[in-house]
Amino acid sequence: MTEMASLLEAFERAAAASPLVRFVDVALRGLGQVMFQDNPLTGLFFLLAIIWGAVSTGQPFVAICGVLALVVSTGTALVVGVDRTAWRAGLYGFNGVLTGLALATFLTPGPMLVVFVVLGAAMSVIATLATQRWLAGHGIPGLTFPFVATSWLFLLASHGFAGVSGAGLPAGAVTAPAVMVATDPLHVVDFVSGVALSISQVFLKDSLVAALLFLAGLAVSSIPAALLAVAGALIAVIVAHLAGAESELVTGGLLGFSPVLTAVALGCVFARPAPRNLSYAAFATIVTVIAQVALNAALAPVALPALTMPFVLITWLFLMAWPAEKH
Amino acid sequence: MTEMASLLEAFERAAAASPLVRFVDVALRGLGQVMFQDNPLTGLFFLLAIIWGAVSTGQPFVAICGVLALVVSTGTALVVGVDRTAWRAGLYGFNGVLTGLALATFLTPGPMLVVFVVLGAAMSVIATLATQRWLAGHGIPGLTFPFVATSWLFLLASHGFAGVSGAGLPAGAVTAPAVMVATDPLHVVDFVSGVALSISQVFLKDSLVAALLFLAGLAVSSIPAALLAVAGALIAVIVAHLAGAESELVTGGLLGFSPVLTAVALGCVFARPAPRNLSYAAFATIVTVIAQVALNAALAPVALPALTMPFVLITWLFLMAWPAEKH
Amino acid sequence: MTEMASLLEAFERAAAASPLVRFVDVALRGLGQVMFQDNPLTGLFFLLAIIWGAVSTGQPFVAICGVLALVVSTGTALVVGVDRTAWRAGLYGFNGVLTGLALATFLTPGPMLVVFVVLGAAMSVIATLATQRWLAGHGIPGLTFPFVATSWLFLLASHGFAGVSGAGLPAGAVTAPAVMVATDPLHVVDFVSGVALSISQVFLKDSLVAALLFLAGLAVSSIPAALLAVAGALIAVIVAHLAGAESELVTGGLLGFSPVLTAVALGCVFARPAPRNLSYAAFATIVTVIAQVALNAALAPVALPALTMPFVLITWLFLMAWPAEKH
Repeated sequence: MTEMASLLEAFERAAAASPLVRFVDVALRGLGQVMFQDNPLTGLFFLLAIIWGAVSTGQPFVAICGVLALVVSTGTALVVGVDRTAWRAGLYGFNGVLTGLALATFLTPGPMLVVFVVLGAAMSVIATLATQRWLAGHGIPGLTFPFVATSWLFLLASHGFAGVSGAGLPAGAVTAPAVMVATDPLHVVDFVSGVALSISQVFLKDSLVAALLFLAGLAVSSIPAALLAVAGALIAVIVAHLAGAESELVTGGLLGFSPVLTAVALGCVFARPAPRNLSYAAFATIVTVIAQVALNAALAPVALPALTMPFVLITWLFLMAWPAEKH
Repeated sequence: MTEMASLLEAFERAAAASPLVRFVDVALRGLGQVMFQDNPLTGLFFLLAIIWGAVSTGQPFVAICGVLALVVSTGTALVVGVDRTAWRAGLYGFNGVLTGLALATFLTPGPMLVVFVVLGAAMSVIATLATQRWLAGHGIPGLTFPFVATSWLFLLASHGFAGVSGAGLPAGAVTAPAVMVATDPLHVVDFVSGVALSISQVFLKDSLVAALLFLAGLAVSSIPAALLAVAGALIAVIVAHLAGAESELVTGGLLGFSPVLTAVALGCVFARPAPRNLSYAAFATIVTVIAQVALNAALAPVALPALTMPFVLITWLFLMAWPAEKH
Repeated sequence: MTEMASLLEAFERAAAASPLVRFVDVALRGLGQVMFQDNPLTGLFFLLAIIWGAVSTGQPFVAICGVLALVVSTGTALVVGVDRTAWRAGLYGFNGVLTGLALATFLTPGPMLVVFVVLGAAMSVIATLATQRWLAGHGIPGLTFPFVATSWLFLLASHGFAGVSGAGLPAGAVTAPAVMVATDPLHVVDFVSGVALSISQVFLKDSLVAALLFLAGLAVSSIPAALLAVAGALIAVIVAHLAGAESELVTGGLLGFSPVLTAVALGCVFARPAPRNLSYAAFATIVTVIAQVALNAALAPVALPALTMPFVLITWLFLMAWPAEKH
């Protein structure tokens, strides 16, 4: 770990000397902040995971749109003139990169998609500033709300613009009881898949290798964060399976990415990982699974994916409910 | 009334001596707080009404789930460590018991329902704390918003979990003009039924006897509250009928339970029942009827009942609009 | 312009002498405030535009309902007892008149419509006060949110009341990709129509003459506001057309009325029209076009028109994000 520390120090010196290296540093930290890590090495791992996840499924443009959005949002924050310390920590990048990944995942490639990604990335910075200002008096962070709000706006708009097609969006339908075949038994391989993909789906990726790269990126910055991510994924898969969720959703990690974020956020980011706090985080993680299924149902009529809104809502609730002296 | 006062005093002495009696006292006050009464005797009447309403319609498990949720939420608040004065007044119980009643009313009985009721009751406490913190700066109370938010979350989730069936939920449908047969004339018996059931539906109960027990419970604590509950129900039935609402909804009390709560809240809980305040409360009650019909329509696509959200929204609006010096 | 100034001065003297003239003065200012102008002459032009727009399309009752709502909301504010300076500036009239116009536009004429207009106009004052109080700590204005909230409530309620029919409302449908024929080329006449109607649709009017009267009313009070209204309409028509929006919506001004308001609000009302601020306003205007299309899609299942909510949402976001020292 001493080698890594000296490596990071050398990189920091280079960044201090060159605005371009600084920009790369901040962009990488922006990637890391998707999972709350202010660490460029974490960001590098996450970048590799995104590229792998996109290329291995034949969708390189998804990674390109993600990187484009990361650059645009990090740059927009500079132009708008945000607080420099927060900017350097990557806090104006993570909503941008997620917006770029989401738009490229659900919309069909084309020139309008690129325009949408650029506008969406810039908009994510405005949304981040507005959310911060809105929540300032309540003492809670914006989390990925700016990403969700911006992405919903642009994804919904795709229904009214011929220049862009939301072919990847869920089909609109009135909310109805899910038609489920008998829940499959959860074989070990499905179980492992569900846990791993719950982690990679935080970045809308469906890949075991990507999941391992994400975990590695977390671990180089914070071992507790990596452990809590795995714990969150485990809880999600077990709870969702026991409650009788659709097997495909469980093993695809589609009910687990929000719980992973809740577990990390409440387990070690906004509180010390003490036993009492961990019980609280575990309860919040279980409720996040329920919220994920609930939002999937609530959004069916408007043909939108829930994205990480379940994580945002439940983490806000549990942070607001937390007596200040207990942190 | 002196006898009742000395009875309540004796009970208070017993509660001070025994933690178990104290817990029962607080749980009963939690029941009373559904209609803003910090009074264990009111709670006892309400408990009898709930049991009667459940048993007489062959659904004893609804009452059991309500009591279970009341105990779990009151206990959760102890564990989390809330303000003791507020806890003793039952302010951490009323959202819990309503959540338990709602889940048991709309979901099919089974082991998962019990799990949902326990989780939902605990979650209602977190939601209560978060709502209080959120609204603190605005000087308005949380009302039954934590109940509505928690219940919507769990009811929506039932669509994605095979372990629990939302057979009692309204069927999902896009919002459309209601198909109405000619509005029936409002016979006296329908009128009385509509008024009475508007009161019992506050607790999701459809029973004349229960309505009388609820009214008696209110009256032993506050005569003005009981009168305002009846006045709210009268306004709701008359307004809804004149505007041409579906007769079945009117006479079943399904458009009246929110107006009943608005009338009591604005008429004598958050303001003195002076003439000017009563006019203001009457206008708010009329708007609550409109809001109930509006939310029923708005929630049709997501297959959710409006619960008491119309009361919450309109009472919030009218409390926020009220110049402080007028209270 | 000196003549106009002396005319306005004479009118102000008359208003100071007679409560009735004062009321007319305040009502006209309320009309002007729909486009942020505290000027009775502007209001007079807007009134003529509304009357022309309604009469020329054979719907005089729409204008009548608008004026009725303007009088009721201005009067309600007096009865409730609002701040007198804000009242005199017409700040309790613009949400009322818009509510009256919207209800009369989307609901079928009849006695219940009149009742709805009166109740809605009074409710818009309560909603205005509540919104002000809610946003006080955040330092942003309520804009037309009270109009949107009140109108949505009453329009939704029309689905459950036989006494009023929402025949003019969009049909409910799950959100789905718009079925579009090949986008028509944008001929000059369509382009001009789209720009003009984007302005008249701020008042839910579909008329070239009305558009010119609205522009004239703006110009007598503020040349920058008039120019920005045209600029906002131009941006909306160009952006919507390039992105492939349905031609009928573009040329009918139905995607442009919210962007017009955003352009005026951010371009010269809440900031000086300096180059940096104008770039910011232009970006916000583009995003408002996207938000208009997005909200149209999101509201399809509940059969509601978006009204000016896209303007409200995006202007709030951009005002919140704006560092205070930049205004």
